Amino acid sequence: MDSMANGCAYIGGQFMPTADAAIPITDWGFLRGDCVYDAIPFSAGRLFRLEDHLDRLRESERRWRLKCPLEREDLRSVAHECVGRSQLRHGLLMLITTRGVPPSLEVRNPALFQNRFYAFAQVLPSLKVTSGSARGMSLLVSKVPRIPQESVDSVAKNFQWGDFTQARLEAHDENVDNALLLDTAGTLTEGPGFNVFVLKGNDLLTPKDHCLRGVTRDTVMDIAAELGLRVQEKGVGLKALSSADEVFLSTSAGGVMLVDEVRGVWSRPKSESPVYQMVFDAYWARRMDPKYSESIDYGAYL
Amino acid sequence: MDSMANGCAYIGGQFMPTADAAIPITDWGFLRGDCVYDAIPFSAGRLFRLEDHLDRLRESERRWRLKCPLEREDLRSVAHECVGRSQLRHGLLMLITTRGVPPSLEVRNPALFQNRFYAFAQVLPSLKVTSGSARGMSLLVSKVPRIPQESVDSVAKNFQWGDFTQARLEAHDENVDNALLLDTAGTLTEGPGFNVFVLKGNDLLTPKDHCLRGVTRDTVMDIAAELGLRVQEKGVGLKALSSADEVFLSTSAGGVMLVDEVRGVWSRPKSESPVYQMVFDAYWARRMDPKYSESIDYGAYL
Repeated sequence: MDSMANGCAYIGGQFMPTADAAIPITDWGFLRGDCVYDAIPFSAGRLFRLEDHLDRLRESERRWRLKCPLEREDLRSVAHECVGRSQLRHGLLMLITTRGVPPSLEVRNPALFQNRFYAFAQVLPSLKVTSGSARGMSLLVSKVPRIPQESVDSVAKNFQWGDFTQARLEAHDENVDNALLLDTAGTLTEGPGFNVFVLKGNDLLTPKDHCLRGVTRDTVMDIAAELGLRVQEKGVGLKALSSADEVFLSTSAGGVMLVDEVRGVWSRPKSESPVYQMVFDAYWARRMDPKYSESIDYGAYL
Repeated sequence: MDSMANGCAYIGGQFMPTADAAIPITDWGFLRGDCVYDAIPFSAGRLFRLEDHLDRLRESERRWRLKCPLEREDLRSVAHECVGRSQLRHGLLMLITTRGVPPSLEVRNPALFQNRFYAFAQVLPSLKVTSGSARGMSLLVSKVPRIPQESVDSVAKNFQWGDFTQARLEAHDENVDNALLLDTAGTLTEGPGFNVFVLKGNDLLTPKDHCLRGVTRDTVMDIAAELGLRVQEKGVGLKALSSADEVFLSTSAGGVMLVDEVRGVWSRPKSESPVYQMVFDAYWARRMDPKYSESIDYGAYL
């Protein structure tokens, strides 16, 4: 069981340490990036919004014309067992549906493949559970435009991160933490694995196009509406960003994260970030709330 | 050795049957599509333009900021050994450089990863070694626009095939063999894994942007120039396509392939396709020519 300490994977119907987990090199999930996934955070032994993540995985599969070989109930049970066997209390569970390996040499029509399903739980890098006054993230606006959703449907959560990776390298080159990407018209989209929120007065804006419909994004929008903010999904330009009161990010792996600076465009006023702080607290309350999260029965997997 | 009959792979310094070859599920080559590759055809025991393919792999790595852990000479020897051990006479050799697995939990900067290298030889589907009068391929013009090269650099050969895969599914839905993709301005780019050539009179046109600089494309351009054609890399619109005398494709896996129809846009005149036939013959002559190909010493790997 020790070998599961860095996570447990489910490959080809078997559970094994994530460190030993491997996929066929001939799976088109690798050779064509032909797969969709979902990432489900768990903390204090509770999986967050599992049903909503499974709904989104199904929607991603539908959009990319993939069919997961596991029924819904089996997916639920694999999710619990991957985390349970790992005995990890905090981490990220990955669920991945791939095109699979070609059924024969002659068959090249992706619609005729038997799709595959893989899962693994992994330890997360230490969460920046920042309070409103702690250091937030520094970002830059990348020179790399986001892949248009007409070319690769970004509503389906996918691994085609060519634009994200170059943007991230650009950010590290400039000694900032991460990058925001614009669409080809110069409007904000998202960053590598996260959605962005821009607060101005009572308006909380978040991009609508060329970005993932994040579950954490959805949670933030829900919380913000309860707080009485006017939440709008719409294009946000750099001009609107430059006059923001607060900027923060949402991601399954990291939760809600404060932004200190978008280099050359915006920096956080010295004052507190009261809306971020309220959203942050409400978000973490939901992570522990049985209405939004379900507990793993670790004893069953000892 | 029988188990190598479907190909031999090189993973983590070991040779093994391609059917058994697997890569770590945590390699960002998979989880972020963060890898480049090259595909080298071999026929009658001869690897085609190996040095040029290795040059291109190096250029792809440079563009995506990857560094192959193997030196050039070791790459050459792995290439020969993968094919040699497989004892395959016809097939495709894949060379893949990936970002690798994160060196530690905290490190997310892709520039700090130890990159990995994988290779495998595989059997090819039977080549359509069509003569000028045989049936060529049917294509459609996909509704899916090609990923702009500003977002994902297509000069670096990569697996981010989200647009290609949806275009291919669209083609199979319409009972045609494959798809051509336009850029967002409506100009021809390429198809899933192939470049396209459009002949009109003495002019042979091939797209310049948002497409791979194919080694087979380069071979065709070279042959065409020797045949006295005026070869031009430039944007080709559907109007120019509609009045073409001949249309053909180039790809490492399939060589030079005749096109019969681009549905609703163009169909091949009943007459012969003399230029295609000359290019086809010259291409296959080069595949066997020691100036362009090198033989595998299969005896050394028995």
